[in-house]
Amino acid sequence: MKDTTSYSNLRYLCTKIGGRICGSPQADKAVQWTKKVLDGMKLDTVWLQETKVLHWVRGKEECTVKPGQASGFKLQACAIGGSVGTGEKGITGNVVEVYDYDQLKALGKEKVAGKIVFFNHPANPAVTYTFDAYGETAKFRVRGANEAAKYGAIAVIVRSATLAHDNFPHTGVMHYADTLAKLPAMAVSTNSADKLSKLLKNEPNLKVNLKIASSQLPEATSYNVIGEIKGSEFPEEVIVFGGHLDAWDKGQGANDDGTGVVQTIEVLRLFKALNIKPKRTIRVVAFMDEEMDQRGAKTYAEYAIGKSHAPLPSSKFKIPTAENHIAAIEADRGGATPFGFSIDASDEQLKAIQSWRNLLYPYGLYMLDKGGSGVDVGKLKSLGTALIALVTDSQRYFDYHHSDNDTFDKVNQRELQLGSFSIAALVYLIDKYGL
Amino acid sequence: MKDTTSYSNLRYLCTKIGGRICGSPQADKAVQWTKKVLDGMKLDTVWLQETKVLHWVRGKEECTVKPGQASGFKLQACAIGGSVGTGEKGITGNVVEVYDYDQLKALGKEKVAGKIVFFNHPANPAVTYTFDAYGETAKFRVRGANEAAKYGAIAVIVRSATLAHDNFPHTGVMHYADTLAKLPAMAVSTNSADKLSKLLKNEPNLKVNLKIASSQLPEATSYNVIGEIKGSEFPEEVIVFGGHLDAWDKGQGANDDGTGVVQTIEVLRLFKALNIKPKRTIRVVAFMDEEMDQRGAKTYAEYAIGKSHAPLPSSKFKIPTAENHIAAIEADRGGATPFGFSIDASDEQLKAIQSWRNLLYPYGLYMLDKGGSGVDVGKLKSLGTALIALVTDSQRYFDYHHSDNDTFDKVNQRELQLGSFSIAALVYLIDKYGL
Repeated sequence: MKDTTSYSNLRYLCTKIGGRICGSPQADKAVQWTKKVLDGMKLDTVWLQETKVLHWVRGKEECTVKPGQASGFKLQACAIGGSVGTGEKGITGNVVEVYDYDQLKALGKEKVAGKIVFFNHPANPAVTYTFDAYGETAKFRVRGANEAAKYGAIAVIVRSATLAHDNFPHTGVMHYADTLAKLPAMAVSTNSADKLSKLLKNEPNLKVNLKIASSQLPEATSYNVIGEIKGSEFPEEVIVFGGHLDAWDKGQGANDDGTGVVQTIEVLRLFKALNIKPKRTIRVVAFMDEEMDQRGAKTYAEYAIGKSHAPLPSSKFKIPTAENHIAAIEADRGGATPFGFSIDASDEQLKAIQSWRNLLYPYGLYMLDKGGSGVDVGKLKSLGTALIALVTDSQRYFDYHHSDNDTFDKVNQRELQLGSFSIAALVYLIDKYGL
Repeated sequence: MKDTTSYSNLRYLCTKIGGRICGSPQADKAVQWTKKVLDGMKLDTVWLQETKVLHWVRGKEECTVKPGQASGFKLQACAIGGSVGTGEKGITGNVVEVYDYDQLKALGKEKVAGKIVFFNHPANPAVTYTFDAYGETAKFRVRGANEAAKYGAIAVIVRSATLAHDNFPHTGVMHYADTLAKLPAMAVSTNSADKLSKLLKNEPNLKVNLKIASSQLPEATSYNVIGEIKGSEFPEEVIVFGGHLDAWDKGQGANDDGTGVVQTIEVLRLFKALNIKPKRTIRVVAFMDEEMDQRGAKTYAEYAIGKSHAPLPSSKFKIPTAENHIAAIEADRGGATPFGFSIDASDEQLKAIQSWRNLLYPYGLYMLDKGGSGVDVGKLKSLGTALIALVTDSQRYFDYHHSDNDTFDKVNQRELQLGSFSIAALVYLIDKYGL
């Protein structure tokens, strides 16, 4: 707990490199920096695993209520990740506010066509674990443009998927359906959403102008960054853990997911520092492109699946030795105080992990529950690998998530390091007892 | 979780009243304000319970290394609560640094007499729950002056009892032994402590000047503020809960313990808002003077013990009806995410509470462990009351504790409200099933 290596690593990644969406020069820098960090740790192997990634670039953007009018003003807004641009003049139109898809459907083409749809769906505060509220609101960011396009809308404005009442627009990925018009899409801060909603009650015919100068460039080449300590007895049995190295271009990618990257690198440092020689191979992967399309995770899974079949003739990875991924741990829920693990595994695997409860409980790791893992390690599902997520205190996570508020200063050194220890402890137990 | 009453209450208490050590005008204001809040809640009874309190007042203070020299500088320092003053010129002397009482003893009178003892005992970072580290360092603040006086020291400087590496001196209470000289005592920030320690390695003969202009005024009159909803079936069975209304004069008393006060007031508001009529009497107490001498808690206990005996002829509280305090819950570990409860109770009481585990677990309340409660409710021990502490995430608590850093902005509305709900849920269960 005295050691500040992982905290210093996070400071560098956040403040010297910053936001690093896949394809960006910052993402390239992050790859090189991470490799350098791993190279300096005297691991058995460090390598870059090439992957293609989408390359979306944010441009100038603004969202103006009552453009050209004296009473006009700008909302706190940003393009949703992957949004098409609007052209220089932007898109201007009336606004129709909806709470959800049912309301949109009820309005129908007649009332929606030619307008800007404003999805104003506040996150449900009556949850304990904030991720339970996130999904219900993030869906309007991810697919809202498609639903609006079905009714002839010209653009969408989406209330930020956060429980905070703040001035930060929170971005995130969106997906266009091939068969529908691609509508420009902006996220607005929750305070801006409230303001717009209030105004629309009195002035339902007000106009809004959206300007987005983003571009979708050709796919780029990037890398997962991987380092490992080879197992002394069962080198073909792999325990893998990681976070994602890419991060949104808003903020510094501190809690999402600089913390997961430095915490999982720290696991290897702790094994080295404590001179623990694992029986099984323990491997960190800093995944590239979790945010846009999980290309890094898909590439890693392809590699792992290829290897696990020793390898299949069809595999593009020509590696002579088979590997068996026995466990995969993802750290991508923010760097706050750890609570334990959410486990997507067979009943036998789950039982084995739960048998360590008394060893983990004194460190505050009470949670060893069946549940979801994460989108990166999730790609290993077909291998029968025990998929595990580090679960951390979620209360403040979406205050930061995908916004300019996701900065280094929000991370507490003790909480960060407790997370590293949590993963290291679980890796130690899995290595010692198998799974 | 949508309601912001308790958060607004905390904002008022912290930013409009601020630090409020017992005896101060701010403490008086806090009493009046709390009563007004309770009066506005349509409770069955609201009353002020008089108590005498110590009245220590901080004055101008500074701690100068190498006074009068060009290379001299000031440490980040403040008087420890209750410290005697130094007079205008202050106290100047050489400094002898010790790690603990063993080292002090080993140095003995010969090397300590006439000098300033510098207790530089860093908090142990290798703990999960930070309170486990606090006690080991706070003891030098509380009793260090007495130990140093035994060897003829002239003053003490104490490293702040915090795990943070920061620029805030953290105050707190100290106690003088009647039989020993009363040495002036200052706390210095951990960064200042490190700086002084480093400097002493090269310049062991440097001098330090301490100036403290504090005063111990005559005891003052103050109050516990109490409100209750009378039980519909068993009004004589009391479930009491509270935090302490006083707070150090450094900072705003946000996490220590504005949060506990507003959270426990909120419990009554929630019962009212949900129209739950308790069978037993549920009572909030905003205790006065936790920080100096727990005079409020002692007064409340005297009252409760008097009442429980229906009442004793010797009791100064002439109340006709007996009361049975079945449970007492203290919220005084900061307003971060709640983890559950630490329970000081009989095996039967503990078992009853633990039987509700499955009801509480979904809200993150995993902890229902035997353990300490708190110094305010602890005074009810002789009644056989189940003594319970709300346990919250402790990682950042001592970063704020007793310093200028303990301000409203550190408190998260969701975390605060989850704490209120946690206590309300436990009160609901105790009321429903008895204990």
